[in-house]
Amino acid sequence: MTSEFDLIQAFLKNFPRGQRVRLGPGSDCAAVSVAPGMQLVATTDAVVEGVHFDFPRFSPEDVGHKALAVNLSDLAAAGARPRWFLCALAVPKSGHVLQIARRISRGMAALGRASGCALIGGNVTAAAEWSITITALGEARRPLARHGARPGDAVAVIGSLGDAAAGLRSYPSPIAARAQRRPVPLVSEGLIATRFASAAIDVSDGFLQDLGHLCDESGVGAVVECSSLPLGRAARRLPDGMELALGGGEDYALLLAVPKRKLPALRKKVKFAEVGRIVRGRGIQLTELGQPRPLPRRSGFDHLRK
Amino acid sequence: MTSEFDLIQAFLKNFPRGQRVRLGPGSDCAAVSVAPGMQLVATTDAVVEGVHFDFPRFSPEDVGHKALAVNLSDLAAAGARPRWFLCALAVPKSGHVLQIARRISRGMAALGRASGCALIGGNVTAAAEWSITITALGEARRPLARHGARPGDAVAVIGSLGDAAAGLRSYPSPIAARAQRRPVPLVSEGLIATRFASAAIDVSDGFLQDLGHLCDESGVGAVVECSSLPLGRAARRLPDGMELALGGGEDYALLLAVPKRKLPALRKKVKFAEVGRIVRGRGIQLTELGQPRPLPRRSGFDHLRK
Repeated sequence: MTSEFDLIQAFLKNFPRGQRVRLGPGSDCAAVSVAPGMQLVATTDAVVEGVHFDFPRFSPEDVGHKALAVNLSDLAAAGARPRWFLCALAVPKSGHVLQIARRISRGMAALGRASGCALIGGNVTAAAEWSITITALGEARRPLARHGARPGDAVAVIGSLGDAAAGLRSYPSPIAARAQRRPVPLVSEGLIATRFASAAIDVSDGFLQDLGHLCDESGVGAVVECSSLPLGRAARRLPDGMELALGGGEDYALLLAVPKRKLPALRKKVKFAEVGRIVRGRGIQLTELGQPRPLPRRSGFDHLRK
Repeated sequence: MTSEFDLIQAFLKNFPRGQRVRLGPGSDCAAVSVAPGMQLVATTDAVVEGVHFDFPRFSPEDVGHKALAVNLSDLAAAGARPRWFLCALAVPKSGHVLQIARRISRGMAALGRASGCALIGGNVTAAAEWSITITALGEARRPLARHGARPGDAVAVIGSLGDAAAGLRSYPSPIAARAQRRPVPLVSEGLIATRFASAAIDVSDGFLQDLGHLCDESGVGAVVECSSLPLGRAARRLPDGMELALGGGEDYALLLAVPKRKLPALRKKVKFAEVGRIVRGRGIQLTELGQPRPLPRRSGFDHLRK
């Protein structure tokens, strides 16, 4: 039987020490120094076995990667530079616990290294199923938020839509399967966007739902031209690819409102699709090649619906 | 059927906005300003239904209180002032979900207010059982850690031992039941201790186990006189109260190593029990009225043991 302490040791082995870390991991608390003039940006997100992933569709490395990726995507949408994270692990009492934990940490550590985000603390508990709850901490001088979009702003998308949802189907294409299992948080894109955008959100629950959040918080509406949506390479080949792009979650694209006069400068720095316009009022209207198109009935993911 | 968004709304209602909070809760990211010269101290801890609590032994308010309390206790041991926290909730898909969540948040919010710790963010996901994973953030100029204890230091305990473990028994006394369900994080005591102690840890896994961690990280050993241990009011009345004090977890007392010359000054500021001495070498030796006493066989809690 694996002990909690063996598991922690095995888990920690893959992680190098971060910058400006005075304490942790391995202590009850971590201590870090936030750079002068920077705000601390914090986010927490969980992936749960049977809800967000299943073995063996996901390898343990995939799970570790994705658990961190979904948090880094939130930092990216805030235009924050990832620095540190804490990882709370819930572990079933049976199965190849130590081996799985080691492999989860390997996938997580690789992404942590690649994005400059260091593990500084965590927790282990028993539970009915595997779950990983990460709190990621970043720094930003002026973090982006959902509010702040103004009528007249362009609606822009960095990254692509629909592939992650396509990856949930039976027999997905390798591209779709990878989009679902190994989402890429658009960290450097977010750092660029923060200099131009008036509001931002990452597409985790579905494009329409997340645009709805951005609009609601900004007190505005939006018009979206569907033919301009950047469908992913897998979604593009599916007859209902557009529906997946509009309603499927977990794409981790960045959805921005950008003042029109800033579009040319943004275009020089990063590739994005201009998909619509922020308008006065409330609600989202869709067009397809200029013609009104009805909203899909189910427009996103709700964790508590069956 | 409760939606994720209804649940978030109901949960957030009990929490006032914190200080120096630029963003959150309700956003994907929170943004806060750490005071100049302060280190950010961060910790994460989870409570899981069936592992750390069961309904109806715990009320939802108890669960909310305890989930935050165990995190604040870690900040207390670091001598950090609690400021902000993030709360990741895992919710079963059936049952009186909204009502329970509302009551959990009520217990949590009361403790948050009392300790000056503001909710700034969170997450909701479905899962097989209720669980609450909190990441608490505090500030400290010079955080205490497990390492730093020196031979000759006194071993001191603030708070009492054994009652929380007594609260796990059948038909516990009201005092023991309360110690188990409503642990009090010793936040102000930790803020005092940080000016005197060379190392600290909170007693979450059991006195001997946590003293073992402190000693291992400091590269020292300890001698403890059992008759000096501050048994709680419930443990004191039980024939095996001493065993509960040594091995039972969840007391959330503060365990300190304090240079001898600083003891008088510390005594003027806070009540504590001097229970032993840090010594050269490794391992913990127990005495009872000066006579050697064997170590108990099972000396603490391991989350992954059955």
